[in-house]
Amino acid sequence: MDKKLRVGVLGASGYTGADLIRLLVCHPNAEIVLLTAERKAGQSIESVFPHLGGYGLPDLISLDDVEWPAVELDVVFCALPHATSQEVIKGLLHSVKHSILEELVAESPSSLADRIQGEVKVIDLSADFRLRNTETYGEWYGRAHQATELQTKAVYGLPELYREAVEKGALVACPGCYPTAALLALVPLLRAGLIEAEDIIIDAKSGVSGAGRSLKESNLFVEVAEAMHPYGVGHHRHMPEIEQELGVAAGKPVTISFTPHLVPMNRGELETIYVRLKDGVSADDLRAHWMDVYDLAPFVQVMEKGGMPSTRAVRGSNRCSLGVFEDRMPGRAILVSAIDNLVKGSSGQAIQNMNLMFGLDETTGLMQAPMFP
Amino acid sequence: MDKKLRVGVLGASGYTGADLIRLLVCHPNAEIVLLTAERKAGQSIESVFPHLGGYGLPDLISLDDVEWPAVELDVVFCALPHATSQEVIKGLLHSVKHSILEELVAESPSSLADRIQGEVKVIDLSADFRLRNTETYGEWYGRAHQATELQTKAVYGLPELYREAVEKGALVACPGCYPTAALLALVPLLRAGLIEAEDIIIDAKSGVSGAGRSLKESNLFVEVAEAMHPYGVGHHRHMPEIEQELGVAAGKPVTISFTPHLVPMNRGELETIYVRLKDGVSADDLRAHWMDVYDLAPFVQVMEKGGMPSTRAVRGSNRCSLGVFEDRMPGRAILVSAIDNLVKGSSGQAIQNMNLMFGLDETTGLMQAPMFP
Amino acid sequence: MDKKLRVGVLGASGYTGADLIRLLVCHPNAEIVLLTAERKAGQSIESVFPHLGGYGLPDLISLDDVEWPAVELDVVFCALPHATSQEVIKGLLHSVKHSILEELVAESPSSLADRIQGEVKVIDLSADFRLRNTETYGEWYGRAHQATELQTKAVYGLPELYREAVEKGALVACPGCYPTAALLALVPLLRAGLIEAEDIIIDAKSGVSGAGRSLKESNLFVEVAEAMHPYGVGHHRHMPEIEQELGVAAGKPVTISFTPHLVPMNRGELETIYVRLKDGVSADDLRAHWMDVYDLAPFVQVMEKGGMPSTRAVRGSNRCSLGVFEDRMPGRAILVSAIDNLVKGSSGQAIQNMNLMFGLDETTGLMQAPMFP
Amino acid sequence: MDKKLRVGVLGASGYTGADLIRLLVCHPNAEIVLLTAERKAGQSIESVFPHLGGYGLPDLISLDDVEWPAVELDVVFCALPHATSQEVIKGLLHSVKHSILEELVAESPSSLADRIQGEVKVIDLSADFRLRNTETYGEWYGRAHQATELQTKAVYGLPELYREAVEKGALVACPGCYPTAALLALVPLLRAGLIEAEDIIIDAKSGVSGAGRSLKESNLFVEVAEAMHPYGVGHHRHMPEIEQELGVAAGKPVTISFTPHLVPMNRGELETIYVRLKDGVSADDLRAHWMDVYDLAPFVQVMEKGGMPSTRAVRGSNRCSLGVFEDRMPGRAILVSAIDNLVKGSSGQAIQNMNLMFGLDETTGLMQAPMFP
Repeated sequence: MDKKLRVGVLGASGYTGADLIRLLVCHPNAEIVLLTAERKAGQSIESVFPHLGGYGLPDLISLDDVEWPAVELDVVFCALPHATSQEVIKGLLHSVKHSILEELVAESPSSLADRIQGEVKVIDLSADFRLRNTETYGEWYGRAHQATELQTKAVYGLPELYREAVEKGALVACPGCYPTAALLALVPLLRAGLIEAEDIIIDAKSGVSGAGRSLKESNLFVEVAEAMHPYGVGHHRHMPEIEQELGVAAGKPVTISFTPHLVPMNRGELETIYVRLKDGVSADDLRAHWMDVYDLAPFVQVMEKGGMPSTRAVRGSNRCSLGVFEDRMPGRAILVSAIDNLVKGSSGQAIQNMNLMFGLDETTGLMQAPMFP
Repeated sequence: MDKKLRVGVLGASGYTGADLIRLLVCHPNAEIVLLTAERKAGQSIESVFPHLGGYGLPDLISLDDVEWPAVELDVVFCALPHATSQEVIKGLLHSVKHSILEELVAESPSSLADRIQGEVKVIDLSADFRLRNTETYGEWYGRAHQATELQTKAVYGLPELYREAVEKGALVACPGCYPTAALLALVPLLRAGLIEAEDIIIDAKSGVSGAGRSLKESNLFVEVAEAMHPYGVGHHRHMPEIEQELGVAAGKPVTISFTPHLVPMNRGELETIYVRLKDGVSADDLRAHWMDVYDLAPFVQVMEKGGMPSTRAVRGSNRCSLGVFEDRMPGRAILVSAIDNLVKGSSGQAIQNMNLMFGLDETTGLMQAPMFP
Repeated sequence: MDKKLRVGVLGASGYTGADLIRLLVCHPNAEIVLLTAERKAGQSIESVFPHLGGYGLPDLISLDDVEWPAVELDVVFCALPHATSQEVIKGLLHSVKHSILEELVAESPSSLADRIQGEVKVIDLSADFRLRNTETYGEWYGRAHQATELQTKAVYGLPELYREAVEKGALVACPGCYPTAALLALVPLLRAGLIEAEDIIIDAKSGVSGAGRSLKESNLFVEVAEAMHPYGVGHHRHMPEIEQELGVAAGKPVTISFTPHLVPMNRGELETIYVRLKDGVSADDLRAHWMDVYDLAPFVQVMEKGGMPSTRAVRGSNRCSLGVFEDRMPGRAILVSAIDNLVKGSSGQAIQNMNLMFGLDETTGLMQAPMFP
Repeated sequence: MDKKLRVGVLGASGYTGADLIRLLVCHPNAEIVLLTAERKAGQSIESVFPHLGGYGLPDLISLDDVEWPAVELDVVFCALPHATSQEVIKGLLHSVKHSILEELVAESPSSLADRIQGEVKVIDLSADFRLRNTETYGEWYGRAHQATELQTKAVYGLPELYREAVEKGALVACPGCYPTAALLALVPLLRAGLIEAEDIIIDAKSGVSGAGRSLKESNLFVEVAEAMHPYGVGHHRHMPEIEQELGVAAGKPVTISFTPHLVPMNRGELETIYVRLKDGVSADDLRAHWMDVYDLAPFVQVMEKGGMPSTRAVRGSNRCSLGVFEDRMPGRAILVSAIDNLVKGSSGQAIQNMNLMFGLDETTGLMQAPMFP
């Protein structure tokens, strides 16, 4: 593919936006033609992110100032806050030609049809289109979804599990960072019936960039450095998302225990997952199954026996590193899953989805080695 | 008590030794008269630990050069590596008057009796006297114990659980840092029959000082900073120690799942503990019981409902902060326990033991506020 | 002195306030009876600073709600933002009996006199009373001083240089953190004519707590960690303060070069100072003079030849560590000065001033050993 | 260029080696065919650097086991310790065809000639070939150079200053990290006569990876984190290297003041440089000259007026960011230069040199965006 995709990034002034741009400027088949940000509209990208200067990127503009059809995007990455995301995407799809919208229009024709001008694919990095059940969304996010017709049609963008759907997808909802690390470890084991669906305990640890660039006291350097603590115990919004996908894999509703912790590092996410083995299954069997399932997955690396995933070995890359250990408690195993929360947990996975949606090789622009030190 | 205890610190050049000294120089009833270190023998303490200059401390000397009776110690803190500790303490007790030794001598009189010159109490910070079962020791530490007669008589120095025994103790074995945080949370709940003894899962996170000052690649700044990972999965030596004490509390053998993680911070240890509740028991019941049990414990702080322990709130202090949360999985609760691994997890607890052994107020010299930032 | 001083801390919810409280709760002659904070008025101190729970401290209240005479303070620490500080202190002195105010009243009697009820000493930690020249204040702080009559009478509270004035002081202005580290190194050398007053270059590095607890993007963990940069080059407000005191020491106006840098650590400040030696003077002469001048200063430690100050050796303590090295450029020396910005650079020094103002031993409550690790 | 260069990395188990590999695996015109390491010989690269697994790299072997002509290298990166480097390179050049060697052989024909089998270019990352004066080398490195005939012929590999020589080079000595940041700032200004060659003061700050992966107490996490300090004051080995190149630029011997500091971060180097301006020259003139000189330099970014270089904006990239500020002291300016010590300060610059030596575009494989967060 010689042509470069015309790419827009909505919400480009946050850390997710920054990492999208970092990866896209080196992507051989992408060209960033639109960057939006509200509070920092009018600024150059280097004034917001000095490390992104020198790539000839467009200035940040307000969403309101985007001339939608004229900008002729092939794909939009939507890195906006949840709730905002759904409204923007809904509006966007009414402004440009979009296959989902066409379908909707076909279902209920309206005067909007004539406003469709081009075709654009949407990759959403917010939480807005991850939950297929609109009631669950309302329950966890405290408000009714404003684009339920889209919510139920969006593809859950975890390519290792839903490659074909992603390839055909027009609106792809990228998984949360915690769900990504958890699902890559658990889904194949549940699908294969190697572990019990009950009593799955996920102890998660994340670097601070996962909390975003918002001005909260709890994100200040001094509050975070030289310390750690859990947060959101029992009510973190990634729980229903994990349960949704584990339920699909297990073929029945799954309730998990999930506790995230904040760790004094910029990037990186590690989950230690405690599971019960089905009778006769060993930790070695889990590893063997992972190796089989992920044999051709370019971004999932299953450690040899004894090998220990670490966030340092995936830093800055789109990798997920998986390890499994026998527990001392009989009939149990301990899974360890490590990703970079901003890459495989967010921006890198979004680009992996883009590659698949446009028929590119899945690894295009994503083969940088992790950065250690 | 006006008289100052004459104190010796064996193994004063490590981080545990440093924190013992940090606390002892401000202790109103203690005077450091002996500091030993092997590789750094002959150096001043400020050349090894510049922050400890200015307190008129003795130079470091080799253990071989200690003139045991002449130094007239009241108490020895033994911050030596395990295996070394047992041999040194055994030898020490043969050189000075010691109540355990007297008892042993009474049991099997020998020529050693006439070498007894004074009385010294021993507080060991190594792992050598924590396990009462000598076979378990051999199994986990890969060698037979060399002072089994002492091993079985040592007091397990967790004052909140064994206050009376500590007060009468002559040889006190300070718990490991991970066991301290785990046992303070779990033992009262098991004793009271509020939680099941099965399926206890301890996910532990520690700062790097817990790994000591030894020259290992894995302790280098660059290897640790901006990263995290589990270690010792399924075979960490604190496991049998935790299981020993949980077994006593539960009245039956207990097998736990325990996974420690290394976190890029100097100090601090946090354990997230997943437990099953007995029928009819709620998370609130656990909290209420803790509050009852620890009502008079000066160093254990039970958080109000919703309150979250963090290592930053105990940094540099002898505190343990406990919190409990309902799990989303029915019938389960999540306990959170935070300590400073070098203080309540090691040196502070050792001094707390000293206070009790010598009839001082338990809090003497230990009431510094935690240091945040 | 058996009686405890009744102490108030205005602006208790910032890092400076937190460190004042941390030190005061262990001070044998102080009792905190008043804590104010505006945005967090009504909260308990443990809800704002969990590490300070358990000391029986009063809740935070708004300044407006303080019943000034009734609270019967002996001393007020004012840890408010500059500009606010001057107005609050001015108002405060009109509400309570104060020696400076009495003097002012004597100069221009007014109806305020009858409102004077008690005596309170004021220790200000803001920048408001550090500059004696009211025009300089206006120039650097962008507004006219609102309490010029107090500004010119305040004592500059660097006890090592102004001990006698501090002892008699009623309103003491604590130096900034950068000036403290710079002046302790430079003033004795200038006074003794050992270095030139020209071409003094101060390259300063500070931990992040120096930037306070305010919600600025540049203070977020992710912006600071794994990075460093200079700031305020050529226009940092500590410059005129340093120049004021160097000018006094040199007996003529002094202009310095001063460049601060932000370093990814919570606490600690280090200045590397490049000076020209007077003819015939060596680096060793500087060290010898320091040792002479600071022989009896309990908090200033002059390193032996070759010894290197480090922030880790002063962390959490009221110490200043000084070292001096020959420069390779002939006729030059390199001074290194390290403090904890929150202690000797702020709260500890404030308490040192309090001790002197009330005839206590200078070191009371300030002899904790530095915390390393 | 379609053909891939056959590349060897000697000393592949250190941080410099790791970063060479990280960059080379994504270089479109390079193929790593040889990796050596002594202590870790026989291991796979992923066992030494887990983040570098998955690229099909050869295992680490000992230098002694390299079959030199057979391996058919086009270029060797030598990331060995100094002193070792010179001996290895000398030996290497006697084993393979090399233009410098040919020249030497031509000068003094010997039996070595017939051992020349192929052509290999050498890029040395040690300090061994940076100093042209063999006596200076001996003085600063404490031993006579063992390959003086090569030392005097090596090209100093700072491409922005010596592009043509590098293009023709057969043995290129990559500058040290501190010299790189210093020289990119200073050399153009000295060449143009805009600043004085006297009184140049360089205050340098570096992340910990600059200290290498060796097991020294001072490199342990706990010693470094939450602290900073200067080191090597007055005798750091990068001083003669900087002075050598400044002397060339100034046309006369230059003596500098240079003080490095260790900062608690993995990567990044920042130098704050204090200079005296020539009469009539302003800080703005310096900036304008930099912009002119570096207009076409792809890796040097001169900040607009007021723009502040930060290590975060160059992290992981081959960039050097330059800024200049007026000093408050008349006639002076403050230069700020930031690089990633492992990239532009070492491995990236080495690859930049390789690109030039083989006629590739200078930026090939080096255009990754910096990684922030």
